Amino acid sequence: MPKMRQSINIGLMGLGVVGGGVAKALIEKAEVLARQAGCPLTIRKILVSHPAKRRSIQVEPDLLTTDAGDILADPEVDIVVEVMGGERPALDYIREALISAKHVVTANKEVMAKYGPELQALAQEHQVDIRYEASVGGGIPLIAPFQHDLSANRISAIYAIINGTTNYILSRMAAEGLDFSLILKEAQELGYAEADPANDVEGVDAAYKLAILASLAFHTKVGPEDVYREGITRLAGHDFRYAKELGFAIKLLAIAKESDDEIEVRVHPTFVPEDFILAKVDGVFNAVQVEGDLVGKLLFHGEGAGARPTTSAVVADLIELAHNINSGVGTRAKPRFEPSKTIRPMSEIRTRYYLRMSVADHPGVLAQISKTLGDNLISISSVIQKGTDERAQTAEMVIMTHPAQEQAMQRALREMEGLAVVQEISNFVRVEA
Amino acid sequence: MPKMRQSINIGLMGLGVVGGGVAKALIEKAEVLARQAGCPLTIRKILVSHPAKRRSIQVEPDLLTTDAGDILADPEVDIVVEVMGGERPALDYIREALISAKHVVTANKEVMAKYGPELQALAQEHQVDIRYEASVGGGIPLIAPFQHDLSANRISAIYAIINGTTNYILSRMAAEGLDFSLILKEAQELGYAEADPANDVEGVDAAYKLAILASLAFHTKVGPEDVYREGITRLAGHDFRYAKELGFAIKLLAIAKESDDEIEVRVHPTFVPEDFILAKVDGVFNAVQVEGDLVGKLLFHGEGAGARPTTSAVVADLIELAHNINSGVGTRAKPRFEPSKTIRPMSEIRTRYYLRMSVADHPGVLAQISKTLGDNLISISSVIQKGTDERAQTAEMVIMTHPAQEQAMQRALREMEGLAVVQEISNFVRVEA
Repeated sequence: MPKMRQSINIGLMGLGVVGGGVAKALIEKAEVLARQAGCPLTIRKILVSHPAKRRSIQVEPDLLTTDAGDILADPEVDIVVEVMGGERPALDYIREALISAKHVVTANKEVMAKYGPELQALAQEHQVDIRYEASVGGGIPLIAPFQHDLSANRISAIYAIINGTTNYILSRMAAEGLDFSLILKEAQELGYAEADPANDVEGVDAAYKLAILASLAFHTKVGPEDVYREGITRLAGHDFRYAKELGFAIKLLAIAKESDDEIEVRVHPTFVPEDFILAKVDGVFNAVQVEGDLVGKLLFHGEGAGARPTTSAVVADLIELAHNINSGVGTRAKPRFEPSKTIRPMSEIRTRYYLRMSVADHPGVLAQISKTLGDNLISISSVIQKGTDERAQTAEMVIMTHPAQEQAMQRALREMEGLAVVQEISNFVRVEA
Repeated sequence: MPKMRQSINIGLMGLGVVGGGVAKALIEKAEVLARQAGCPLTIRKILVSHPAKRRSIQVEPDLLTTDAGDILADPEVDIVVEVMGGERPALDYIREALISAKHVVTANKEVMAKYGPELQALAQEHQVDIRYEASVGGGIPLIAPFQHDLSANRISAIYAIINGTTNYILSRMAAEGLDFSLILKEAQELGYAEADPANDVEGVDAAYKLAILASLAFHTKVGPEDVYREGITRLAGHDFRYAKELGFAIKLLAIAKESDDEIEVRVHPTFVPEDFILAKVDGVFNAVQVEGDLVGKLLFHGEGAGARPTTSAVVADLIELAHNINSGVGTRAKPRFEPSKTIRPMSEIRTRYYLRMSVADHPGVLAQISKTLGDNLISISSVIQKGTDERAQTAEMVIMTHPAQEQAMQRALREMEGLAVVQEISNFVRVEA
C-alpha cells in the first residue's frame, strides 16, 4: 500500500466565476472534503491577472500570483486546476502541467474539444490523469458515465440540450411568440446572454461540448471542425406557432449518432415532438439523452452552468484524483480509441424537414411545390396554408416532410426558390422523431 | 506498475433473467469488453439450481455447477457476480466471497439495503471491493454518482420513482380513472406485475432502494426498517380525477431528506405538481431527483429494470473492478460514515395533505371540519365539494391543506372520524410541492 499523503496540493489557475467557486468550496468545505478525499486538499497558489482586484471571495494575498511558473514549476503541486477558459494560454499551461507529471482538472470545453485526445495521450505518457467533468453540462455527471457507467454499451445516439443561453432564448420565444432579436435583447439585459452572443447563439459552444461527448461515446476522435453547426438566429415567432400547432417544440439540439461505422455530429435548431422529454426541458437547464444497446434511453437533466454546479464537477474530479494519488495509481482513465470512424457528410444525413415559405395565393401553387419535392424523392407528410396577405396576394405555406436526404432537400430548396410562385423560403428546420 | 493480467475470472451466481443477460453480454461482447477492461473477462463457473433446464442463452455445459463451493473455493476466481436475488443464500455467498478476498458485484437490493454497511466493512477488511450499481434503478447510474460525481455536495433531498411496476399501475390509473385492483389485474396479465405483487405495491422494493440511496447520500446507515412505508393499494380512480383537477399527478415517491442533522426516509403515494418533471415520468420508467448544495437539482431518468439495463450496470462494475485489479488497487470505494444521524419519526414530518371524505350534505359541515383541522393547527388551502349522492344525502369533500405536522394530521383524522357529519375518510395522501 502506498503511504497516505499528508495533503494534496492544488495549483488553481483562474479566480473568476468558476475559480472563485472552487476556491470557496475548498476553503469552506475543507473538513468534509478531506474526509472524502482521504487527506486535506490544499490550495498552494492561485494564478490571477490582477492580484489587487476586489473579489467576492477572500483568499490569503500570499496565495495569489501572476506567474504561471509559480504553479507549473513547483514540485509540491500535485494537481493543476485550470478554470481560466479560452484556448490560450490555458492549453500551454495544461501541456506543461502534464509534462511536469502533474494531474490536471479542467473545465475548458474549447481546449478539450480541440486537443482532448492529444492531451490524454500526453497525460498517459507522463503517468498522470486529465479530468474534465466540468467541461460539459456543469455539475451533471456526463464524462464519468461515458467513461465508466456506460462502458458496456454500444452507444447509438446522443440528443443534447447543452447550451443554457440558447435554451433560455428558445423557451422565451416559444412562450411569447416573438422573434429572436427581441428575446436576445431581453436575455442580455437579464444576464443570460453575453454582449457578444455569437459563441452561444451560433452553436459554437454546443459544438465543442458535442465533440467531447461524441469522442467519448464512440471511442474515436471527433473535433469541433467535424460538427455541422447552425445557430438559432433565423428562427421567428411564426416558427414556434406552427411548431406548436404541429405538436412540436423547437430546441437547439446537439445530435450525435453512429450507424454503419459512420458518425453524424450536428448542432442545429430541431423540431422535437412535444411528448419527448427533451421538449420539456425549459429555461437554462441542460439535458442529455443517451441511447445504448443495453441501457436503452437514459436522460441526465440539471443546471448546465454557473459557479456552483461547475464547482461540484471540478471538486469531484479533485477527490477522484486524490483517491488515485493515495492508492498509488498514476493514470486511470485510459481512453479507448477504436479504428477510426468516418464522419458522415451532412449532405448524406436523413431526417424529416419543416419548411415555411411565402407563396403566391392562387390555385396550383401546392401542385408545383409538391412536384418539385417529389422530383427530389421527398414526400410531404402535412401542409398548412394560412396568413394570406390580401394586398400582396401571398399566403404562408408550411410543409412537414417524411424522412429525406439532406442533399435532396437542399436541391429541392434551390429549385423551389426558382419557382415563380415561391416568393421566399422563410425557414427550414430539421425534425427528430 | 502491477503486471497486467492475462484474464480476469468471474464466478457468476445465478443464470435467470439478469444472470442470462450478463452471461450473454460477456460472451457476445467479449472483444470490446476486453478492450475496455484491459484484459479478457472470462466466465469460469456459473452457479445454477437446475443445470438441465432449457435457457434462452447457450453456455458450455461444463461452466454450470450446482455447488457454490466451485466458485467460492476456486482461487482463480477474481470476482463473484451475485445475481440470484433474495436474502439467502445470496448473503452467505457474498460474505464468503469477500472473506476469500474475491471482489463482489451484486444486483441484490435486499441484501445491500439490509447488510450494505456490514458487507462494505468486510470488503475493506479483506482489501477487496463490493460494487452494487445494478441494485437501484437498473442501468441508470445512481450509486457511482453518489460515490463519486456528487461527492463535493451536501445532499439535502432525494425524490425518486424507483419501482417500475407501481409507476406503470399509477400511470394507467391516471389514464383510465379506474381503481387499483382493476389495473393491477391488467398489469399482471401483461407481465408488469408479479402474481404476488406485495413486494412492489406495498413499497417494500422501493424502501430497499431508498435505504441504499439514503445511506450513500447522507453518509450514514439507513436500513429498510428506518423507512416509513405505505403502498398504493388504497388509491381510487376518484383520487386521480381530483389530483388532475387540482394540478397534480400521483406517484409512489421514495423521499429522503436531511435537515438539522435529522433524516426523513419515506415511501408513500404522493401528490406531485404537474409541472414538476417527476410528474411526467410515466410507465415503467424510473427517475431520481437529487438536490445538492452545489449541483442544484439533478435528475436521472431511464429504464429501471430488465435484463439489459441491469446487465449494463453489472458489466460496468466488472470493468471498474478489472481496472482496479490491473492497477493493483484492492479496495477503492471507501464508504464515509459520518457521526450517526437520527431518523426523524414519521409523526414529526411536515407536509401538505390531500383528504377525500364522504360527508353529510347539509350546511355547516365544512365549518365543523375546518374547526377540527384548525384546532390541530392545520389550515385549509382549498376545498372541492361534489358528487352528491341525493338518495344517501351525502357529498364528497376534498381538502388540500397547507403544510402541517403529521402527528397533528393523524389526530385531526381521528377527531373527524368521530364527527357525526363525516361518514368516511376515504383517503388521505401527502403532497410534495
